[in-house]
Amino acid sequence: MITSPDNDKLKTIRKLQQKSWRTKLGLFSAEGEDLVGAAESAGRPADFVLRAGEDVEPDLLDAVSTLGSGTRVIGVYEQRWADPSGEVLVYLHGVEDPGNVGTIIRSAHALADARVVLGPGTADPYSPKAVRASMGSIFGRPPARARLDALDGHKVALDVTAERELRDLDVTRPVVLVLGSERGDLPSGVEGVRIPVHADSLNVAMAATVALYEVANRMAADG
Amino acid sequence: MITSPDNDKLKTIRKLQQKSWRTKLGLFSAEGEDLVGAAESAGRPADFVLRAGEDVEPDLLDAVSTLGSGTRVIGVYEQRWADPSGEVLVYLHGVEDPGNVGTIIRSAHALADARVVLGPGTADPYSPKAVRASMGSIFGRPPARARLDALDGHKVALDVTAERELRDLDVTRPVVLVLGSERGDLPSGVEGVRIPVHADSLNVAMAATVALYEVANRMAADG
Repeated sequence: MITSPDNDKLKTIRKLQQKSWRTKLGLFSAEGEDLVGAAESAGRPADFVLRAGEDVEPDLLDAVSTLGSGTRVIGVYEQRWADPSGEVLVYLHGVEDPGNVGTIIRSAHALADARVVLGPGTADPYSPKAVRASMGSIFGRPPARARLDALDGHKVALDVTAERELRDLDVTRPVVLVLGSERGDLPSGVEGVRIPVHADSLNVAMAATVALYEVANRMAADG
Repeated sequence: MITSPDNDKLKTIRKLQQKSWRTKLGLFSAEGEDLVGAAESAGRPADFVLRAGEDVEPDLLDAVSTLGSGTRVIGVYEQRWADPSGEVLVYLHGVEDPGNVGTIIRSAHALADARVVLGPGTADPYSPKAVRASMGSIFGRPPARARLDALDGHKVALDVTAERELRDLDVTRPVVLVLGSERGDLPSGVEGVRIPVHADSLNVAMAATVALYEVANRMAADG
């Protein structure tokens, strides 16, 4: 039973709240039974797991938690990076909010069994907030890293100025959904489609979710 | 120019971080140019607006900001509650996360020009986090409060155990999308539909967004 805040495992968990340490160690932490369970379901071994009252004094675990309410369990895992391949890819450019990155990883997995590819200016998917928002999909569907021009496939970007509506999209596999804050003209070879909206815009995670749902439907309809 | 942290307006902004004070005063705050601009666009007068360097010393405004990075402007507004009527309603039950509530208010507005109706156990839509997540839609589409059985219309709930898929839904107007953490059997008179998923579940805001998109599409197709 860990009884000192100077314990090395607790120190590691504290360090992993910082991106620089996550990158240096190649590790990340996941808090709570749901996430630690998702790692197990995905067959991802933990570097270590600390449970309150079993491995560590509850107060000491709460002190290294990023949740306001504290936590009963924290696991530490190796970061994994996948190859940017698959029938459906979601390419993110400049998505700075870790909650949005995690949410998109979840939606990609749930709606289209799709892989997320991180381009420039995108938040760390292994930050505590992103991991939590992924609802565990970060374990089963680890993201890839690449630049857009390195990806093959039918590239489709959401663009409020496009003529064509998302629901009229013809999906050719593999498809690459391009999302993020890129301004101005779309890169060449990227088809723009729009989601009809009554307000100025949608949150990027919502836009990604709608596009993933539509692409999955199109593919299911094509057989 | 406000130069004292004891100024009444600054005190009010600080109080409005707490739900009890928001309810007591019937007010809420909105931070940042985008939100203050959204209030103006929606024709919603401010009780008062404080701009850094014009009305108040920048440090003092930052000190009452809920954003880690501080802010240039904060406006205070009257809370408004709408009637629970319209062609498309989104009924939330037990959606405890204010970010999700705000995001759903945005998606409802953007995708289907729909009104959000708050049922029991749902987070305050006027909390700073919810207001921010609404991307300003809280001003143009203020939410309503009601119980589900007080609403008329074709009630549809997302339910992972339902036979029928969301895309096969026949939409009869008005439609009430029922979302949230209700467990067990659906209330009588509510039709269950499911979004096909590869993972266990979607975040409630994502599920709401997909359902709103599909309902808006169905309605557009019906003319």
